Amino acid sequence: MKYQIAIIGGGPAGYTAAEAAGKAGLSVVLFEKRSLGGVCLNEGCIPTKTLLYSAKVYDYAKHASKYAVNVPEAFFDLGKIVARKSKVVRKLVLGIKAKLTAHQVHIVTGEATIVDKNTIQCGEETYECENLLLCTGSETFIPPIPGVENVDYWTHRDALDNKEVPASLTIVGGGVIGMEFASFFTSLGVQVTVVEMLDEILGGMDKELSAMLRAEYAKKGIKFLLSTKVVGVSKGETGITVSYENADGTGTVTADRLLMSVGRRPVTKGFGLENLNLEWTERRCIKVDEHLQSSVPGVYVCGDLNGVSLLAHTAVREAEVAVHHIIGKEDTMSYRAIPGVVYTNPEIAGVGMSEEALQAAGISYRAVKLPMAYSGRFVAENEGVNGVCKVLTAEDGTVLGAHMLGNPASELIVLAGMAIEDGKTIEDWKRYVFPHPTVGEIFREL
Amino acid sequence: MKYQIAIIGGGPAGYTAAEAAGKAGLSVVLFEKRSLGGVCLNEGCIPTKTLLYSAKVYDYAKHASKYAVNVPEAFFDLGKIVARKSKVVRKLVLGIKAKLTAHQVHIVTGEATIVDKNTIQCGEETYECENLLLCTGSETFIPPIPGVENVDYWTHRDALDNKEVPASLTIVGGGVIGMEFASFFTSLGVQVTVVEMLDEILGGMDKELSAMLRAEYAKKGIKFLLSTKVVGVSKGETGITVSYENADGTGTVTADRLLMSVGRRPVTKGFGLENLNLEWTERRCIKVDEHLQSSVPGVYVCGDLNGVSLLAHTAVREAEVAVHHIIGKEDTMSYRAIPGVVYTNPEIAGVGMSEEALQAAGISYRAVKLPMAYSGRFVAENEGVNGVCKVLTAEDGTVLGAHMLGNPASELIVLAGMAIEDGKTIEDWKRYVFPHPTVGEIFREL
Repeated sequence: MKYQIAIIGGGPAGYTAAEAAGKAGLSVVLFEKRSLGGVCLNEGCIPTKTLLYSAKVYDYAKHASKYAVNVPEAFFDLGKIVARKSKVVRKLVLGIKAKLTAHQVHIVTGEATIVDKNTIQCGEETYECENLLLCTGSETFIPPIPGVENVDYWTHRDALDNKEVPASLTIVGGGVIGMEFASFFTSLGVQVTVVEMLDEILGGMDKELSAMLRAEYAKKGIKFLLSTKVVGVSKGETGITVSYENADGTGTVTADRLLMSVGRRPVTKGFGLENLNLEWTERRCIKVDEHLQSSVPGVYVCGDLNGVSLLAHTAVREAEVAVHHIIGKEDTMSYRAIPGVVYTNPEIAGVGMSEEALQAAGISYRAVKLPMAYSGRFVAENEGVNGVCKVLTAEDGTVLGAHMLGNPASELIVLAGMAIEDGKTIEDWKRYVFPHPTVGEIFREL
Repeated sequence: MKYQIAIIGGGPAGYTAAEAAGKAGLSVVLFEKRSLGGVCLNEGCIPTKTLLYSAKVYDYAKHASKYAVNVPEAFFDLGKIVARKSKVVRKLVLGIKAKLTAHQVHIVTGEATIVDKNTIQCGEETYECENLLLCTGSETFIPPIPGVENVDYWTHRDALDNKEVPASLTIVGGGVIGMEFASFFTSLGVQVTVVEMLDEILGGMDKELSAMLRAEYAKKGIKFLLSTKVVGVSKGETGITVSYENADGTGTVTADRLLMSVGRRPVTKGFGLENLNLEWTERRCIKVDEHLQSSVPGVYVCGDLNGVSLLAHTAVREAEVAVHHIIGKEDTMSYRAIPGVVYTNPEIAGVGMSEEALQAAGISYRAVKLPMAYSGRFVAENEGVNGVCKVLTAEDGTVLGAHMLGNPASELIVLAGMAIEDGKTIEDWKRYVFPHPTVGEIFREL
């Protein structure tokens, strides 16, 4: 059978494209070798948030006295936390499957191989297609640190399914994944050390807010080694030892467990990508246009695979744009307002340009910064917790970027994203009626 | 001294106007007889949310096992909860005072009396003004129920400062205030009965969602008497007895305490309003134009006093519009997208038109309704809890109204409000990138 769209990879890009195309009445085949939902749903965004929420409930219990609630004892059961995580994932995977099935998407479980742009092989079967969407995502990148091959380290995947609480944990890489796990294990009482090569955690987020978050976590007991390069790892009797170098010289940190969260890179091998003869950019990414179409007409590349942003929500939007292009609906991809969120407690979120990026680009801007305590609701619900809302504007008041530390930044940052996308000013926010009392009102206070 | 603006009442309308006018460089005098912040900050929005958050933390502890956290015992200390509430209020009142002082607002504590539109008397002093803003707010309305004068009932003000947990509580009036207190006291283990004259709680909110919320609270143990008229109250040895009539006949409910939360009405007496000779509408509200200016030029009426919406955030926006008119900045008041929020757990929020209002107006519409479980984050953070997101659109897809049951509806509803204000469609939401996973993504799923 010939399909109008074949999709390789069932993560956020793939399943979104499949649903959108199916809804539009196109015949769709989707290939997924593991589980629908991809890394995001099965071993990324969703499972981490499930774990982090259990940690939050545990933290609420431990710190309940701040709100005049007395909890003499609280315990957690990591086995059950992980079991609940798996249940949530199963439920959501089934939800995606149901949506795709409802839109007549043909789901094929197996490893697909591209024969040519109109032909996909999977197992014994051959599938023909008019359009091909590549959504194979990304995978954990393990740097070639001496000794790493002899050590039983965790990736995020292992950390998610681990049911025993280590006494100590070293996390190599203080980016989003590293910090979310650092937050989780610190809540559970694990002694965590974060080793980061850059001079601040959460590269890509606002530097000032990242430093504030780091200070909060340092108070909670996390040890941070910044501007520190890992030069070796080894297994000894007392645990796994990480050797490092920084401006102070060399040193080691030993812990029961080691989590490697240095980064991720696009999955470009193992599915016949080389048979398409695609053009690549100088930065070694697959070249795509504003409709996510590659240099080969009819071949689209969405999600982490194109290497632009490596975020599930970018993938979702890219997939929609690609399908719209195929069905002839006017739409183009904009990367001006892609939010970034770290689900630590407090959360940190940002969208648009950072101060560093504006300075590097030589764009003059104004930074308006307010303590989150300007929101009455924030004060009511965050005893002894500080936060900041920082909005960067152009000379004419147009919002260029927004960065927020404090709950629920994750849910609020889209308001700033919308302003950036629409070219709105801080003044424009004030013409809307925000319900009172909400944390979101902070945007009206700027 | 002659002021460019005199403001009577230091609640959300008054303090917002004072700050905005002060910022704009106008000379401002503000009269407040009690405490800056008005009912909202001192005995309304903020204190209730502080209490409700303590109840939420207590609920988290009691139900922690849903998230694999074991809390054998949890207690609350109502005295401390109330003390924390008072501390939060004090902090925020001081914050408002500091903002006003920073903008050179002259704050006068005392009862102001209008002599004429340019002259205010307070104590021994007389103040002249070019413009006059009336922001005296509203007060609790106690209906003339037989026997009520002989019973020691609570208003919301008493309930907020009460430090002893009654075994049982009858709440007359199942509106926003009634339901927020019902939620609070139910969390604390109080047997609550809600008596409501209308056929559903939360008149003004979406009826279907209100019924769902009522069912949730019925499961938690609240008894609801709908379409029920209170015909008498009396004090006996076993508590306060409320006599009622409904379709089933007559009956009584007796409880330790009685909270009267039937409604509120504008404060129009006691400050010389009669000296202004203002025009009134047929519905007995002060007539104002789209700049909140009354029939007397230079006299503006903002907030609850004008009787339009009786919500703090409406008051804030009205105050801004009034000041903008005075300083000659183009701006008009829109009531198209005033959100309504009830801070029960789960929260319920709505904005724009309801199905009932659309039907009554004969406007054809489409209702798109999704379970909140379409959001992965909602599933991760709401074990065993359901919710609904309902959006009402015109034939051309324009958003007319949105109604949401599920946390954090309070923070998300403004997204729908913005769409309504800007005349956007559901499709427009899909062009923005919402961070994943968030509950707000539900708007993209519609």
